[in-house]
Amino acid sequence: METLVELIAKKRDGGRLTDEQIERIIRALGAGELADYQMSALLMAVFFRGMDDAEMVALTRAMLHSGDVLDLSSVPGVKVDKHSTGGVGDKVSICLAPLVAACGVPVPMVSGRGLGHSGGTLDKLEAIPGFRVNIETDAFARIVREVGTCMIGQTARIAPADKRIYALRDVTATVESIPLIVASILSKKLAEGIDGLVLDVKVGRGAFMKTEEDARKLATALARVGTLSGKQVVALLTDMSAPLGRAVGNAIETREAIDVLRGEGPDDTIACTLALGAEMLVLGKVAQSAEEAEKKLRDAIASGAGARVFERMIEAQGGDPAVVEDPSRLPRAPEAVLVYAETDGFVADIDALEIGLTAVAMGAGRTRADQAVDHAVGIEIVAPRGAGVRRGEPLARLHVRRQADAAAVAERVASAFRISSDPRAVPPLVIDRIVA
Amino acid sequence: METLVELIAKKRDGGRLTDEQIERIIRALGAGELADYQMSALLMAVFFRGMDDAEMVALTRAMLHSGDVLDLSSVPGVKVDKHSTGGVGDKVSICLAPLVAACGVPVPMVSGRGLGHSGGTLDKLEAIPGFRVNIETDAFARIVREVGTCMIGQTARIAPADKRIYALRDVTATVESIPLIVASILSKKLAEGIDGLVLDVKVGRGAFMKTEEDARKLATALARVGTLSGKQVVALLTDMSAPLGRAVGNAIETREAIDVLRGEGPDDTIACTLALGAEMLVLGKVAQSAEEAEKKLRDAIASGAGARVFERMIEAQGGDPAVVEDPSRLPRAPEAVLVYAETDGFVADIDALEIGLTAVAMGAGRTRADQAVDHAVGIEIVAPRGAGVRRGEPLARLHVRRQADAAAVAERVASAFRISSDPRAVPPLVIDRIVA
Repeated sequence: METLVELIAKKRDGGRLTDEQIERIIRALGAGELADYQMSALLMAVFFRGMDDAEMVALTRAMLHSGDVLDLSSVPGVKVDKHSTGGVGDKVSICLAPLVAACGVPVPMVSGRGLGHSGGTLDKLEAIPGFRVNIETDAFARIVREVGTCMIGQTARIAPADKRIYALRDVTATVESIPLIVASILSKKLAEGIDGLVLDVKVGRGAFMKTEEDARKLATALARVGTLSGKQVVALLTDMSAPLGRAVGNAIETREAIDVLRGEGPDDTIACTLALGAEMLVLGKVAQSAEEAEKKLRDAIASGAGARVFERMIEAQGGDPAVVEDPSRLPRAPEAVLVYAETDGFVADIDALEIGLTAVAMGAGRTRADQAVDHAVGIEIVAPRGAGVRRGEPLARLHVRRQADAAAVAERVASAFRISSDPRAVPPLVIDRIVA
Repeated sequence: METLVELIAKKRDGGRLTDEQIERIIRALGAGELADYQMSALLMAVFFRGMDDAEMVALTRAMLHSGDVLDLSSVPGVKVDKHSTGGVGDKVSICLAPLVAACGVPVPMVSGRGLGHSGGTLDKLEAIPGFRVNIETDAFARIVREVGTCMIGQTARIAPADKRIYALRDVTATVESIPLIVASILSKKLAEGIDGLVLDVKVGRGAFMKTEEDARKLATALARVGTLSGKQVVALLTDMSAPLGRAVGNAIETREAIDVLRGEGPDDTIACTLALGAEMLVLGKVAQSAEEAEKKLRDAIASGAGARVFERMIEAQGGDPAVVEDPSRLPRAPEAVLVYAETDGFVADIDALEIGLTAVAMGAGRTRADQAVDHAVGIEIVAPRGAGVRRGEPLARLHVRRQADAAAVAERVASAFRISSDPRAVPPLVIDRIVA
């Protein structure tokens, strides 16, 4: 049998690793027989040489089985989750999961935290007083069964190999590798015990994938590997050149998600929620078509059924369910400062990356995994893309701890807005739909 | 300033690292700010992307200055060393250094141990009873000054970054990278305080570089980077398809080197010693031409001056100098077993790699750096390339601990000989001479 070093050399030289070899590597990593410095060399070799579908399936499976696979057999129905590759202002999971659950599709969801310019669902949920994201697997299954959805963090027992490998990739310049991204996402999601998965692959400045070409490669790889892994998978490519919706920050994003559940909320956040939700309902076999599914979702908003599921989920996870009826119970920064337009015109573009980085600098996000976030601060877009503005009218509202914090932030936020003299068409939210 | 991860990404994306960036990386590695797993990812990126001359010079310098640079200013003359990329039966350093020193060129030599199929000078020298290769730098300089040469192992203070990086490369499939090989060799050699360096870049089955193309790339890179680092450098490409000389094993190789100093020894070992020695004498400015240099070397053999320097060096390093006059004082395996030809014909080829690996299996070498070697065992070629043999005549002599050890070894050694019905030309030893 080859040595582990020979397996690194095989990938380095463009060879194909067999299922057994990939399984051996992940097992050896867990057992301490393959050192971190060997794994990182292999990760860099994968960066250069890539992996074919069979290798990605094997890597996903090996990482998945490095930990527990949640047993949701006690939950009736076709379990479907959604994963977003991350962006700025992307609070969709928070309204989507309760809505889809209200329509009869169980949604077991393991989410992540914000890192770099992009936010994380767990941080947003933790803006709700008392809300706990660390839930043991038994309780997780029970909440999904009883409430329809539960949203937790990756526990030490879910795909530990992914945790280990992700930490290495982060510090070895091997994050941007499609096979590694695919295995990382799918190993965690498959560990949830799901039957189907809808992927929101974000494209643009504020996304991990800056170009449509790269995003399409990732989406097709995710769809193929997920399908080869025996799951039903649909991916949507969606625009992330500007922030999604109006709110960027933790509590204010949760509030926007509650707005959607209450039949309010910005058009693009609603559209994104409905598009992803429709796919989930069809995968979950409670709707025959996207049209039928969208009607069910709109009904669940109108009837308040989605909001009720969210309240029950918050309660089951130790939080204050009254925030749904009274969002003012969410933490709120003491000062609100407006950022004004300096010229007349139309908002042609808002740089999602700059808005995201500014929010991090305000304390809403983190640059290292061990940092705490301030749930109350954030940036609220007042004039979205397409809006006409006059000099002196507000573009954005900053939620800050002190007035003194606002000056530098205001300048950065203003610079993220591009004002044109003519109105420009807002790019479509859903760029493409990809299945294997 | 870029983060260290950004520097890894820069090389990964094909960028050029500046002198300052390379220096920072090596400093951070030493200070524990750059982890082994980050260094190994960078090493793999260098494997794929390479380095230009300026990067190799900077890497060599940074690794060199990670430790002490020996101060040989107290030694008069132009100090010249020789480095071989390693092969099977390559005992040339042991006769070469004393001969060159006898001709007036000081030779400060830091050597290595055998690993894998190739032997190491230190192991061969340690076959001499009492011989010590761990000599402190002060004593090293004194012995070079008083005797003309001293041969020691890499101390913890010589290029510690190289030690660390080499250990990583060995287990991360990043050994075979020309920039990394060049910096590893030159950083150690430049730490010796030399003025000139002659490189013996071996080519063929028994060498690290299997093809002339690869060997030529390495030799030219070594010559260029060594010259850019301010040293006089000449590289010879020499044949390593068959073992050099007759002896493969520690004590028997030392004995063959003593034979050369005594005017005996096989033609190819003598030729290799004279070719490299001539370059060293010219670099050392004690000869104007290779012809004049070769005459001086032959005179130093004939007069016994080389043998006397070797005796003095052995004495200075704690060993028994009487081995030079009486090589029977070297350790000797208790049993000698002959391997016989099975057909009539001519020895067309001897597989150096197979002979080297067989010697390791006999205990003469090591597969892991922490293994001990048996100095007494080895393989002696009786019928070298070009020799005519008849069925039943000896091809080789095995020096073993017990008769029972010989059977499996004999079969492997016999299989390494290729016997042809017609005599074949023996390839030339020196394939090319390369300067920057």
